[in-house]
Amino acid sequence: MLEYKDMIRIIIISFVITLILGALLIPFLRRLKIGQSIRKEGPKSHFKKSGTPTIGGLIFLIALVITILTSGVINNDLIILLTATLGFGLIGFIDDFIKVVLKRNLGLRAYQKLIMQIILAVILAIYQSNTSIAGTEIIVPFLNTTFDLGYLYIPFIAFVVVGTVNSVNLTDGLDGLASGVTLIVMAFFSLVAIKVGSESVAIFSAALVGGCLGFLRYNSHPAKVIMGDTGSLALGGAVVSSAIILNLPLILPIVGGIYFAETLSVIIQVTSYKLTGKRVFRMSPLHHHYEEKGWHETKVVIVFWIATVILCLIGLLSIS
Amino acid sequence: MLEYKDMIRIIIISFVITLILGALLIPFLRRLKIGQSIRKEGPKSHFKKSGTPTIGGLIFLIALVITILTSGVINNDLIILLTATLGFGLIGFIDDFIKVVLKRNLGLRAYQKLIMQIILAVILAIYQSNTSIAGTEIIVPFLNTTFDLGYLYIPFIAFVVVGTVNSVNLTDGLDGLASGVTLIVMAFFSLVAIKVGSESVAIFSAALVGGCLGFLRYNSHPAKVIMGDTGSLALGGAVVSSAIILNLPLILPIVGGIYFAETLSVIIQVTSYKLTGKRVFRMSPLHHHYEEKGWHETKVVIVFWIATVILCLIGLLSIS
Repeated sequence: MLEYKDMIRIIIISFVITLILGALLIPFLRRLKIGQSIRKEGPKSHFKKSGTPTIGGLIFLIALVITILTSGVINNDLIILLTATLGFGLIGFIDDFIKVVLKRNLGLRAYQKLIMQIILAVILAIYQSNTSIAGTEIIVPFLNTTFDLGYLYIPFIAFVVVGTVNSVNLTDGLDGLASGVTLIVMAFFSLVAIKVGSESVAIFSAALVGGCLGFLRYNSHPAKVIMGDTGSLALGGAVVSSAIILNLPLILPIVGGIYFAETLSVIIQVTSYKLTGKRVFRMSPLHHHYEEKGWHETKVVIVFWIATVILCLIGLLSIS
Repeated sequence: MLEYKDMIRIIIISFVITLILGALLIPFLRRLKIGQSIRKEGPKSHFKKSGTPTIGGLIFLIALVITILTSGVINNDLIILLTATLGFGLIGFIDDFIKVVLKRNLGLRAYQKLIMQIILAVILAIYQSNTSIAGTEIIVPFLNTTFDLGYLYIPFIAFVVVGTVNSVNLTDGLDGLASGVTLIVMAFFSLVAIKVGSESVAIFSAALVGGCLGFLRYNSHPAKVIMGDTGSLALGGAVVSSAIILNLPLILPIVGGIYFAETLSVIIQVTSYKLTGKRVFRMSPLHHHYEEKGWHETKVVIVFWIATVILCLIGLLSIS
């Protein structure tokens, strides 16, 4: 089993690779004029961002793959983790490619993206239920017990996967928000992985912690590069597959409370507007609500990071 | 001995107390018009900050004291930790009080501040050398050995204390910089404290991690409150006394690399200017150099945080 010092080395290696790849790829992405048009519905202050190169998620994804391949470890769990991350990353990449390279502003249609996501989610759920020692049992936080989902395991896990991936995607709307929150969430999973002795999640989460930390150097406000759907869907896949391997899908609403709140804000906003014609938030997702309230972008980002640190500490308390 | 779950509870308690105190005290500090005049020599973009209330360090210091008192633990080490933190905080408070309340822009004279700091540093060094089990031995990072300083212990420790405290003070020049870097450094000490079984440093560092995390909610860009010398000298005292209690003063140039670089930049700048008439940096301390190079304030802050995370990981590798 990995010692914590091995994990620190993995974090540092992945961090350094990400920094180097960023320095090499960002000018390339900029030269190709891969700059995404910012959503017309976003706050006005974001219009100036339309020149920032996107598809930056490639940077930490390449670093992740290199770091894991050089670790020399390969097993079923790592295959699930990488399939989820790179699979959802690929769906995001197709979307980004259509939007940015083919200059069609909307990318994939929502139903096309959702069908691809559901197919991948079901494959992951089936594979996990067949290879996991815990089978269809999941841990219930705070209660110090497990719960057998039985036949409901596959639909439940597929739902959690699709929900989480799209929530992380929604969270990716401010400089450093999705990368920073996910850095903290993956650090949480790395601590849990050491504790329960999951070598695969330990290596994987350490590599992604280093990747997010390095990416943040370029992605923090004012961002030199943004991750695009390539990055945010991949990070969603990484977070949800780590939780599933550790039999902790129920920890996600806690440690991923920010993702959850972002999605909930959209659901509440849309539902309320359709039913009553009134908006509950000034703008959804939630981070735009605070911006419209007059918070500076960096304030929203750092407050959401702080909240995630506290939520992850509560997450650590919730599992024995 | 404390379990890690006890430390998490301490972090959360201290965080919540700091948030509440911030909400109560910041409007009070603003009403009293305790707004510090910003140094005339700083970058021009900082002039607009002259209305921000200062002496905000009181917020996390009160939270720290409340959290530690309610923990029910008291021993020699905790007395050193609190004396260092509150003692240097008091020196900073006198300085802030003269500057801000008495409206004298320069505060204490440099030699007055230095004499007070040296006296406190020597007291701490003597007390520690008398009460510590390790006596005058300190740990040498990377070499997995200890070194007995003998009679040099007291002058050496006093020098490290005064140097560290003033370095943290110099680091406190951008929104969230000193509070964020110190949050990470204290998280490092909390991990070391768990590992070596130092209950006093464990409680103390956890309480300060929570305090810095809560303070950052108000202190991150754009800051609603700044910590003043009250805060930065106190944080310096906290960092250096934690290192000393753990017999790790030599870890400070590693994990506190940012403090170290800030001070070094000033020394190099002043020396070079006096000797050759040329400036090495566009402006010192280092964070202003990057600002003058055109980096956004938040970029400098987050890059310095990232560097500190990596330095603390290296710090963890350096001790066995």
